[in-house]
Amino acid sequence: MTYSGNKPFSHFRHPILLNTQTFLVSSHCPWAGWVHSSSLTCASHQTGTRDQTPAGTEKAGRDREGPQGQRGAAGTERGCRDREGPQGQRGAVVPRCRGAGRAVPALSSAPSCAEMLRGKRVIVTGASSGIGEQMAYHLARMEAHLLLTARTEAKLQKVVEKCLELGAASARYISGSMDSPSLPEEVVREAGNTWGGLDMLILNHIGQSSFTYFNGDVEHVRKLMETNFVSYVALATAALPMLKESEGSIVVVSSVAGRIAGPFTAPYSATKFALEGFFSSLRQEFIIDKVNVSITLCILGYINTESAVSAVSHVIPDTPAPKEECALEIIRAGALRRREVLYPARPVGTMLLLRSIAPELLDSLIRGSYRLENVRRT
Amino acid sequence: MTYSGNKPFSHFRHPILLNTQTFLVSSHCPWAGWVHSSSLTCASHQTGTRDQTPAGTEKAGRDREGPQGQRGAAGTERGCRDREGPQGQRGAVVPRCRGAGRAVPALSSAPSCAEMLRGKRVIVTGASSGIGEQMAYHLARMEAHLLLTARTEAKLQKVVEKCLELGAASARYISGSMDSPSLPEEVVREAGNTWGGLDMLILNHIGQSSFTYFNGDVEHVRKLMETNFVSYVALATAALPMLKESEGSIVVVSSVAGRIAGPFTAPYSATKFALEGFFSSLRQEFIIDKVNVSITLCILGYINTESAVSAVSHVIPDTPAPKEECALEIIRAGALRRREVLYPARPVGTMLLLRSIAPELLDSLIRGSYRLENVRRT
Repeated sequence: MTYSGNKPFSHFRHPILLNTQTFLVSSHCPWAGWVHSSSLTCASHQTGTRDQTPAGTEKAGRDREGPQGQRGAAGTERGCRDREGPQGQRGAVVPRCRGAGRAVPALSSAPSCAEMLRGKRVIVTGASSGIGEQMAYHLARMEAHLLLTARTEAKLQKVVEKCLELGAASARYISGSMDSPSLPEEVVREAGNTWGGLDMLILNHIGQSSFTYFNGDVEHVRKLMETNFVSYVALATAALPMLKESEGSIVVVSSVAGRIAGPFTAPYSATKFALEGFFSSLRQEFIIDKVNVSITLCILGYINTESAVSAVSHVIPDTPAPKEECALEIIRAGALRRREVLYPARPVGTMLLLRSIAPELLDSLIRGSYRLENVRRT
Repeated sequence: MTYSGNKPFSHFRHPILLNTQTFLVSSHCPWAGWVHSSSLTCASHQTGTRDQTPAGTEKAGRDREGPQGQRGAAGTERGCRDREGPQGQRGAVVPRCRGAGRAVPALSSAPSCAEMLRGKRVIVTGASSGIGEQMAYHLARMEAHLLLTARTEAKLQKVVEKCLELGAASARYISGSMDSPSLPEEVVREAGNTWGGLDMLILNHIGQSSFTYFNGDVEHVRKLMETNFVSYVALATAALPMLKESEGSIVVVSSVAGRIAGPFTAPYSATKFALEGFFSSLRQEFIIDKVNVSITLCILGYINTESAVSAVSHVIPDTPAPKEECALEIIRAGALRRREVLYPARPVGTMLLLRSIAPELLDSLIRGSYRLENVRRT
């Protein structure tokens, strides 16, 4: 089932990260150990839970402490044990997932995370390129069922073909623009009609925006908010009944620009800030209301997607982090039902620390590290 | 000049503050001294600058360190000296403004702040009730020129009458709903036509929202975003040419729910988070671009406005802070061109500190302090 579309999604997550890598690279980051450890304990069911059927309701890898999983703790067994759920399934400590935190992808060294997602029914938005495309490939290797969305049908077709080659249990797509108010419900309805349920909703798409001075285009702000924020709310709302049924996961891909508003990203930052406000509040309500659907917020730095490099490399002279590893970290954090993931962990974590203790200093450092003469005005 | 309107604004700034006062009241807050000192040094021009005509371009009270003023430091002369600007005006240290930080308003003890605003041309949105109404009264006592907006014409008429009684240099209003895309430009055009310029834009209005579990109403989210966020962008955009001319100020009234997303405020928190993302990025661009327009973000806790008390008092059993003092603190922060103001400073500052060092603990404390059994579902 396909719909027509015309514009590619761009992956532009990180406009203020790269420069800080220059001056913060050697700093200690208290978050790094929490979210990007090189040794994490992960989980899967030992018996009877690796349901590979589309309609399976396996509930793997959830923390035993409540509806919202806690962060995995490096070198301990706390973070990722399977819970003793309402179905009486008993959790078991499983082998560690190694590879996170390395400079290159390490798929083969994360077997239990892959097992957790085998046969799962996953929607990935913004999946025709960049990080979304890489997430689709990782999930395909993990033998998940995939429903991919993006604007450009031709690209999606190729991604779906590759996913099937890589081992996806199934793969299909819907093309269309998320600034259309009807598309979110259509996508979720397609998942319901095809699979009869849903295990994971990965919200990753973004509309096009420029890395430049705000030019007063209020209509652009309104439209970007619809694409980058309101459609996320609509997708999550439509998917919630199925996610409650499967005790599934919502993964919200955001940016360091959604926590620290540097220059040249005013409309984009607004939409990413909004995501954190909405989904953090919703997470609190889920915990209170005993809704066992996890919400993982992904705070990404400068990633080497084509669109990001094209947008900012003339202003931010540094090396972006690899999109393949980034995609894997997002999937891992979602599977482990973490509250949030920072990637790359050390520079993003250091920036967030600096924001807390010296926000004006951080602002000044950001301004000072840009090649301002290269910023194009629109 | 008036326009028709039908719904009152509500002032609902602080749903997650009051409970924290219970357990954080004795904590030390590092921000308290910065933003809510009992002894602040303020500024005005000594000679030739107290222009009381509507079209005056007096530029009082700006920090000498750049386009965006720094925070005032308690007990020093640093924060509020007038700058040596491009016009060659020399700054002078002026008497201290006492009174901030007290439990009751202290207008008479803040002479220099009042002088800074005498004759200034100020727009206040959401001015028919709550904090906006109180800001109008303070500004009237300071003899400013006022253009007030809100939805309810009958209330605005009364506020304008009282402003004139209190000493406003002039006072007028425009009624209408800020979810109308045309109203922001109409308001700013009215200021231009009447005054020929603008010195301060205080963005304070909010749409109606309920303190309850998110009920899946995506259209409400979209509409609230238009009112609470997009209209702020539109007003600031329309006003910017005049504010550049006067080297004026933008004051954005936000909430602690715009930094810490507690439960029952998901749509509201999203809009307030968005404000911080947009205006913080814009502030950085102004500094880079040498645009001498300050942006002050106001992070408010639980204030005793009628709408706030009505919305949350059954869930948050604590004493709200006085709206009169809150309004004065906002005006003061705007006049002093501060980056941000926290009010009430100690509990809000303590919450923000806790957010930085132990976000999950803060979330847990918030959940534990609510009277959850009283939350009404919609």
